[in-house]
Amino acid sequence: MIDFRPLLFITGLLMAVLAVMMLIPAAVDWATGDSNWQEFLGAAFLTGFVGVGLSLSNRVAFLEVGVRQMFVLTAMIWLVIATFGALPLYFSDLGLSYTDAFFEAMSGITTTGSTVISGLDSAPVGVLLWRALLQWLGGIGIIVMAIAVLPALQVGGMQLFRMESSESSEKAFPRVAQLAVGITSIYVALTAVCAMFLWVAGMTGFESIAHSMTTIATGGFSTSDQSIGHFNSSSIDWIVVVFMILGSLPFVLYLEAVRGRANALWKDSQVQVFLAIIAFCAIAIALWQVLANDVTPYESLRRSTFNVISIITGTGFSTANYYLWGSFAVTCFFLFMFIGGCAGSTSCGIKIFRFQVLVGAVRSQMNQIWQSHGVFVPYYNRRPLPDSVVDAVMNFVFVFALVFALLALGLSALGLDFITSVSGAATALSNVGPALGDIIGPTGTFMPLPDAAKWLLSLGMLLGRLELFTILVLFWPAFWRA
Amino acid sequence: MIDFRPLLFITGLLMAVLAVMMLIPAAVDWATGDSNWQEFLGAAFLTGFVGVGLSLSNRVAFLEVGVRQMFVLTAMIWLVIATFGALPLYFSDLGLSYTDAFFEAMSGITTTGSTVISGLDSAPVGVLLWRALLQWLGGIGIIVMAIAVLPALQVGGMQLFRMESSESSEKAFPRVAQLAVGITSIYVALTAVCAMFLWVAGMTGFESIAHSMTTIATGGFSTSDQSIGHFNSSSIDWIVVVFMILGSLPFVLYLEAVRGRANALWKDSQVQVFLAIIAFCAIAIALWQVLANDVTPYESLRRSTFNVISIITGTGFSTANYYLWGSFAVTCFFLFMFIGGCAGSTSCGIKIFRFQVLVGAVRSQMNQIWQSHGVFVPYYNRRPLPDSVVDAVMNFVFVFALVFALLALGLSALGLDFITSVSGAATALSNVGPALGDIIGPTGTFMPLPDAAKWLLSLGMLLGRLELFTILVLFWPAFWRA
Repeated sequence: MIDFRPLLFITGLLMAVLAVMMLIPAAVDWATGDSNWQEFLGAAFLTGFVGVGLSLSNRVAFLEVGVRQMFVLTAMIWLVIATFGALPLYFSDLGLSYTDAFFEAMSGITTTGSTVISGLDSAPVGVLLWRALLQWLGGIGIIVMAIAVLPALQVGGMQLFRMESSESSEKAFPRVAQLAVGITSIYVALTAVCAMFLWVAGMTGFESIAHSMTTIATGGFSTSDQSIGHFNSSSIDWIVVVFMILGSLPFVLYLEAVRGRANALWKDSQVQVFLAIIAFCAIAIALWQVLANDVTPYESLRRSTFNVISIITGTGFSTANYYLWGSFAVTCFFLFMFIGGCAGSTSCGIKIFRFQVLVGAVRSQMNQIWQSHGVFVPYYNRRPLPDSVVDAVMNFVFVFALVFALLALGLSALGLDFITSVSGAATALSNVGPALGDIIGPTGTFMPLPDAAKWLLSLGMLLGRLELFTILVLFWPAFWRA
Repeated sequence: MIDFRPLLFITGLLMAVLAVMMLIPAAVDWATGDSNWQEFLGAAFLTGFVGVGLSLSNRVAFLEVGVRQMFVLTAMIWLVIATFGALPLYFSDLGLSYTDAFFEAMSGITTTGSTVISGLDSAPVGVLLWRALLQWLGGIGIIVMAIAVLPALQVGGMQLFRMESSESSEKAFPRVAQLAVGITSIYVALTAVCAMFLWVAGMTGFESIAHSMTTIATGGFSTSDQSIGHFNSSSIDWIVVVFMILGSLPFVLYLEAVRGRANALWKDSQVQVFLAIIAFCAIAIALWQVLANDVTPYESLRRSTFNVISIITGTGFSTANYYLWGSFAVTCFFLFMFIGGCAGSTSCGIKIFRFQVLVGAVRSQMNQIWQSHGVFVPYYNRRPLPDSVVDAVMNFVFVFALVFALLALGLSALGLDFITSVSGAATALSNVGPALGDIIGPTGTFMPLPDAAKWLLSLGMLLGRLELFTILVLFWPAFWRA
């Protein structure tokens, strides 16, 4: 039997923190004279009340969480934050149903960036800030998770990034806590720097803060229906590009860099491959645009770099409707959604290291099939890969494909057309944001979809953000019987 | 260095056989007074001349073929048969370019069934017979390959079906030859039975022979532009359904059944899972049709069973334009293309046993992630699976996905729309036949595509038919350096 008390205790504490966070947009709305502050205060009160109650009623003498409890806790935290994070949106003057509010909150906390709201430009400032805050918290949340929890859970090959610290459980907690503090500081610093650049480039103070939070979190919520395209500024585009990339690199390596080992970043094979992929894709689409659509080289490079990197990293900002760039671009952007950034960053998707592991495995296989008595071990970052990691990565990719197919089937059973179904499934599972097609493409919103589709996509976002297995194992009967 | 002489010797012999085969449609055209017989005779002469010349000039004292030579030989045979099998079509009165003729021949020999010809109903009988013959030969060819060659090559997990005979190389050849004769007899018998049923159900003698050959080969070439829909006969539909299924089961098990062990067929887990999958999919689509499209239950079951099984098994006949059945059906049929039949049959695609291996692997993984010290071995057919098979299957599926993505990208770069590109890539790689969309859907043909797309799709068909790695390894530099 799993002891739920420590899990409810921790979840309650986090809800109290969430309630405190809700006071920030409340204060901003109050300061700007928007009556919306009352809704935030109400949501904060409700969330805080339930959270504190949960914690108080589940106090434990000694806080110890086992591996199985960790799975339950992880799922619980993300679900509860989406459930209660939706309240301010539900209570607000936007007139959202709870389904819409939950979808928006899940899209926020998973750093997806799909939105059901149109009319962002005239929405209450508090609401815009809350959306940005959800993504920002979701971003740092997943990095800390990826460092502290996922490797221990051996999910989808993340054990490859196990710290020495997590080997011996006694010293583990202090080391991980220290690491978490260091990385959070870097996250805050990068956000501040990004905001400053955006402000200098012409955004208002509020816009620069909101966008810096959703950029570094590779989230993609904007304060305008036209996303970054609203600003129509070359310098803003390039600043956002740089910080989307920074948000997609392994944050542990920034810590190394700060500690004087800057080489760790450039010598990491995941980083190298990631940079090569985004450069290649951006240039390919830019060339295509110049040749096929008769755009000037610089404009083409600017638009293609921005939108390609936004989709590959799973941020989901847009400056153009690339759905109209011709069928080659449509197929490319569809495939880009699956790529993702580096492990240990805020980005999602299949992730670069998994492609590296797979390519390594295929290389061994290519040699194996005609030399049956040889032994060919795949490598990663100049080290031989343990079988368990290769297995876990391959299982992850297979389950990813399976869940993608089921999501697409589900969406099309609800009556959505082929491109909306397949791209919607992809964008949710990879936490990208916009999809393709006329409804949920880069200039559309998810509002017109039926409620059932919104719940299905919310499930997809949660599955994708928590590396699939963290959620799926909860549906595994043996997990509960043990 | 690879010694090409024995390979050219064998290829030459097979070309001579191909030339003899060309005499069959020549004779038929001559008997029916169609002047087209001269073209067949010309093609036969050319093919026979080159083939005999190749064999004579590469005679070897002792015929011995190593593993690496086997890879080269396999690719060479399929390529050469498509290249020369295209000649009668190229020379014929249909006015095909060589690109079109090659595409059609490759689609035939790989049992795909995609066609560039419209106006089949009025085409010379010899041409129709030649298309059917190519698929029939391709069907038996791949079964013999799957039994005799692929397991030894350890491609994509096919070593799971290694016969005891292939273990000790000395006795291997007589046993494999015996097996091949047995299976070919069954193949001929099934074709004859199918033809008889179709004739009784109302087809002409010629139609019944042509369709029985392409049904048992899960090929899908028809003598009418409307495919089996042309006959509009309930009994013909069900007969074809039964023989498409028979063509998708492991032929080795028929031999067991003939030898008195009929249980081998029903107790095989691949057969059980395959039958369960096609039944489930056919019923699901039938129900959907009744609910969404207001079709009578029997009509719905008949149409859905026929078209669903035709696509899952990779046959590619059609009796209706399922592209117009709504978006759920479109997404379903798109996914059906990847499934395929059983290993050791004439069908293609990812194949049932690979899904079983993958599901087994995921089950172990599901237990592994929360019990890191346990050891969980996946099973197949009630036996533990060796790691090497799991690895090979996973590599296969990953490479399948990669090649699919590249093909789709290539097609869309040639200007084809999204659904044509992705479904075209899928139908080629899985050797299905028709794709989706307005151009290459069940009622269209591949004729309007640009030549480059036809070559790309031909490559896709070859890759899919020969289990990817058999071809890909030839592009692997180390393979040639050794």
